[in-house]
Amino acid sequence: MARIALGIEYDGAALNGWQRQREVPSVQQYLEQALTRVANTPINVQCAGRTDAGVHATGQVIHFDCEHHRPERAWTLGVNANLPDSVAVTWCKSVSDEFHARFSATHRRYRYVIYNAKLRPAILGKGVTHEYRELDTHKMHDAAQALVGEQDFTSFRAAHCQSHTPFRNVTHVEVSRQGRYVIIDIRANAFLHHMVRNIAGSLMEIGAGEQPVNWIAQLLALKDRTQAAATAKPHGLYLVEVTYPSQWDIPWHPAGPLFLSERP
Amino acid sequence: MARIALGIEYDGAALNGWQRQREVPSVQQYLEQALTRVANTPINVQCAGRTDAGVHATGQVIHFDCEHHRPERAWTLGVNANLPDSVAVTWCKSVSDEFHARFSATHRRYRYVIYNAKLRPAILGKGVTHEYRELDTHKMHDAAQALVGEQDFTSFRAAHCQSHTPFRNVTHVEVSRQGRYVIIDIRANAFLHHMVRNIAGSLMEIGAGEQPVNWIAQLLALKDRTQAAATAKPHGLYLVEVTYPSQWDIPWHPAGPLFLSERP
Repeated sequence: MARIALGIEYDGAALNGWQRQREVPSVQQYLEQALTRVANTPINVQCAGRTDAGVHATGQVIHFDCEHHRPERAWTLGVNANLPDSVAVTWCKSVSDEFHARFSATHRRYRYVIYNAKLRPAILGKGVTHEYRELDTHKMHDAAQALVGEQDFTSFRAAHCQSHTPFRNVTHVEVSRQGRYVIIDIRANAFLHHMVRNIAGSLMEIGAGEQPVNWIAQLLALKDRTQAAATAKPHGLYLVEVTYPSQWDIPWHPAGPLFLSERP
Repeated sequence: MARIALGIEYDGAALNGWQRQREVPSVQQYLEQALTRVANTPINVQCAGRTDAGVHATGQVIHFDCEHHRPERAWTLGVNANLPDSVAVTWCKSVSDEFHARFSATHRRYRYVIYNAKLRPAILGKGVTHEYRELDTHKMHDAAQALVGEQDFTSFRAAHCQSHTPFRNVTHVEVSRQGRYVIIDIRANAFLHHMVRNIAGSLMEIGAGEQPVNWIAQLLALKDRTQAAATAKPHGLYLVEVTYPSQWDIPWHPAGPLFLSERP
């Protein structure tokens, strides 16, 4: 029995999120179908971070066990040939059976990409969130620094979030502008359900001048989801990186999405 | 009677090119339908450069005449509300009836975007051309300089090209790399049919080491389309800018696509 880890990229626009569901296509379902075909035996996968419908990934990580040996190119080129255009394997690595895509991960990193212009875009329309109000990214960046640290994120947690605790440890958050694009780059040990989109929604209110820069700090202190802004759309959200202890020697893949450099 | 110029962006992946055809959706057809609805009278449009099926634009320019006055927001927000997600108006400008989107234009600029990695991408899969061979962009850039100037481009012209002359004047060409992306940026007074894609195909052979750096110069001298490489896929091609004499005061729009700066 061999355990294999794969890097996965997907365009979530046409997909109903990570998790296998009846009758609607999910990333998990496509991957398990393609892997099962290549392995010629049923394959079940575990992912580092489940994503909602419409959310994308450049740096999702999965693992699975397979009783049959296959060369690496079978798990990359072979699986890609069996996946729809919107899902792809980006790397492959044999790992010991102590590795777990979810439980071994120490950090997740997301990028939320906003197209900030009066008129909507036509290119990557379901891959960015359109905001017509002019956003002040300096204010957004300053406001976001209140998120850093081990804190209670109740104010940014979905009502149906199933986590046992509202505490998460945000280790880095940066808001920057690249032309008409505004990028929120956030890293934490893990995230609550809808946490990045709820934070993005509130940061956009600050950027648009509707709320003061200290609003994020105020919301955190309130521990009340009803006080924060509406959940921002899934279109602009990308799971860009999952970090593991160096012992696992997990391959590096550019965070992206697309032409975005490591630090925009 | 008022003449209006519009900036147009489109994701060509799901479209059958610019030109109106029976029974398949085209950019022209979508635009004329949306404009006709807003104008409440039949509208016919002229574009700066017709693009093939699968080709995208961030900087297409069109003009049309309308007997009814409409506020600018009708031609931008109003038209966008009547267009599919893959087509959008980016700006609007009233012009005199001496302006012509095609005949007033002095230069067209295209970018050809290559995703250069062993495994195919999942994000923007129909918006980049995947090349798995490692490309040497310095060789490609050096080779491309032979294209600059008023020359006979017979070797890079489609068999069914309807132009009366094979001469075009290339004023700028640059090949650069941004991470895993290779961008061919080319500007000319006008282009022959398939000219950018034929040039891109030959430059990729040079970048992959299959042909010498002076191959482009050799091909130009041969004046024989059968000697050059196959036409590269439409996926990576974007019409990014059309230039007009300054008297028309045509609005500026970022070339893109997406996060690409003016000069990558």
